[in-house]
Amino acid sequence: ATHKLLVLPGDGIGPEVMAEVMRLIDWLNAEGVAKFDTETGLVGGASIDADGVPITDATMAKADAADAIIFGAIGGPKWDGVAYENRPEAGLLRLRKDLGLFANLRPAVCYPALADSSSLKRDVVEGLDIMIVRELTGGVYFGEPKTITDLGNGQKRAIDTQVYDTYEIERIARVAFDLAKKRQNKVTSMEKRNVMKSGVLWNEVVTQVHGREYKDVTLDHQLADSGGMNLVKWPKQFDVIVTDNLFGDMLSDIAAMLTGSLGMLPSASLGEVDAKTGKRKAMYEPVHGSAPDIAGQGKANPLAMIASFGMALRYSLDLGDLADKVDQAIAAVLAKGLRTADLKSEGATIISTAQMGEAVLAE
Amino acid sequence: ATHKLLVLPGDGIGPEVMAEVMRLIDWLNAEGVAKFDTETGLVGGASIDADGVPITDATMAKADAADAIIFGAIGGPKWDGVAYENRPEAGLLRLRKDLGLFANLRPAVCYPALADSSSLKRDVVEGLDIMIVRELTGGVYFGEPKTITDLGNGQKRAIDTQVYDTYEIERIARVAFDLAKKRQNKVTSMEKRNVMKSGVLWNEVVTQVHGREYKDVTLDHQLADSGGMNLVKWPKQFDVIVTDNLFGDMLSDIAAMLTGSLGMLPSASLGEVDAKTGKRKAMYEPVHGSAPDIAGQGKANPLAMIASFGMALRYSLDLGDLADKVDQAIAAVLAKGLRTADLKSEGATIISTAQMGEAVLAE
Ligand SMILES: CC(C)[C@H](C(=O)O)[C@@H](O)C(=O)O
Ligand SMILES: CC(C)[C@H](C(=O)O)[C@@H](O)C(=O)O
Repeated sequence: ATHKLLVLPGDGIGPEVMAEVMRLIDWLNAEGVAKFDTETGLVGGASIDADGVPITDATMAKADAADAIIFGAIGGPKWDGVAYENRPEAGLLRLRKDLGLFANLRPAVCYPALADSSSLKRDVVEGLDIMIVRELTGGVYFGEPKTITDLGNGQKRAIDTQVYDTYEIERIARVAFDLAKKRQNKVTSMEKRNVMKSGVLWNEVVTQVHGREYKDVTLDHQLADSGGMNLVKWPKQFDVIVTDNLFGDMLSDIAAMLTGSLGMLPSASLGEVDAKTGKRKAMYEPVHGSAPDIAGQGKANPLAMIASFGMALRYSLDLGDLADKVDQAIAAVLAKGLRTADLKSEGATIISTAQMGEAVLAE
Repeated sequence: ATHKLLVLPGDGIGPEVMAEVMRLIDWLNAEGVAKFDTETGLVGGASIDADGVPITDATMAKADAADAIIFGAIGGPKWDGVAYENRPEAGLLRLRKDLGLFANLRPAVCYPALADSSSLKRDVVEGLDIMIVRELTGGVYFGEPKTITDLGNGQKRAIDTQVYDTYEIERIARVAFDLAKKRQNKVTSMEKRNVMKSGVLWNEVVTQVHGREYKDVTLDHQLADSGGMNLVKWPKQFDVIVTDNLFGDMLSDIAAMLTGSLGMLPSASLGEVDAKTGKRKAMYEPVHGSAPDIAGQGKANPLAMIASFGMALRYSLDLGDLADKVDQAIAAVLAKGLRTADLKSEGATIISTAQMGEAVLAE
């Protein structure tokens, strides 16, 4: 089978780290290990510069037709002046929303070789393995009204709306419980039910889904603020965390930073399984951003991007064996002491983005 | 002058830690060092149990008349079943909203003696001194609509609304800039302008206030998710952080946890200065919560509560010298190696809540 991939490098370090995935794909194609049909598209600032919008309808159509989308990173100060509707992030948000990618899986794993890169004490993060399941197509990101109104007298009023329906909470809860069953069998749900009605409903629905379908999984509820504290205090208490779009944005970034492995962490954004084809739309993306400050210098760490491609092999393309090999290659390269500049550690050899890509391929 | 204080111990460990403030107040009154006229009221679960509401109108009237309110902590699993409108937190939120306490000052300071209690590496947190300025009467906490609607078919829809007007952002920005001038002269504003319209307005207004009135202060903008990351990675890059109600809730808790001194941190919630009297309404409260799991065991750390009283002396009662003495007494007690159970550190002597209160008084 030929696997149709849409490759969206984006902005900043996006194209650099994506080049290392392309190096891998080209090799796999050349060796006949698997067959990939890749198209490349523009998204974010790159698309604004070329077409005036952060993603074109033509690119959206390609995204819709692909078996998987491999996404780099978007945004940067260059597009700070762009109108809100056309800012780089709108391209990413349209992909998520229009393709129905409601389930964002963000593993926060501390690689033993990298435990010392963390700002946290080694014993707090060593061996850490959390999965954050973030709702990705609802909440304050997409709720209407979302407006700024001029009230006169020099006063403006800005409004954003957080909206959640029962079914949105049910389906993300199921993703979390299903993942937990293959892991440590524990889910922690986080919201602010003491302040937000959406938190009240979130708590209620997650509790119902648990009682109806997943009684065998341990479920715990934490307020998002104390949950954030607990993440910093003793993150190993968590297995799977399920939370809404905005809390998930904050908490997954913090969890990623704890591991000392930010440049290492992949993510998957998944849609619902199509009852007919058994397939689901999916986009794979590193957790890190576009890092405009180091773009173009060959300093960026391509491992999160390569690991994201690995997740695509596993979850979308049914190439689990190949995914294992990618993961093993990454681990082997790290074990050899090879590091990009973001991963400071004593006695390591600092190499460039391209050298890291080559090293992974060699393994 | 007699200083009128309203004392609201609240729930969980609230009454225990407040008892140690009362010990101090009684002594100050007895010695004639200063004159306090204290009234005690119920709030949160304690008020629900007694009066069916989380705060009564009579207590609100006393709060309105006081020179300062000293608040313990509220909430606990006992009141999980209470209707949303009457939950313990509603008492706290009513105090904040009805008294117009829009500026929440949350210092995150790492006491040298406690640096090892942090889950972060000593060099990352030692000497840390951040002031988080959180907007406290706006945003998603109070915006309308805030509803859960039954849509039929087993579906409900929950809505919360984030609202900010220009003047609300202006006044909190001024508080932040004024504080920065007495500190390291640097303000970092955090929002999600890439996703939220309130973030766009927040960014715009903070930038305007800066350009108009505080050009001499360094202003930096960060997205709240990367800001949270930076807080975990290298918190010493910050001086004053200004942010909205919900981000402030999350970020200040995380900042507090970094310091290893959660049980040590006080906070102040301030209203606008009355043009006639020159006074402002104010409430002082520890950053930690009601910790129902250790309530009633004499384990709670009263230092954050005592330090909150110290902040009241300084900011509301014009008793700066006395506030200095309170702070010095706290530092002296810690230097002697006295600790409550939350502050694990080698060679320390673990003492009870009351013993800690006595030790501070003795100093
Ligand atoms: C770029 C931005 C819109 C995005 C978000 O807020 O979701 C990013 O922070 C992320 O977490 O993927
Ligand atoms: C108790 C709760 C309503 C409150 C809040 O969310 O503001 C608390 O977390 C705080 O930070 O003071």
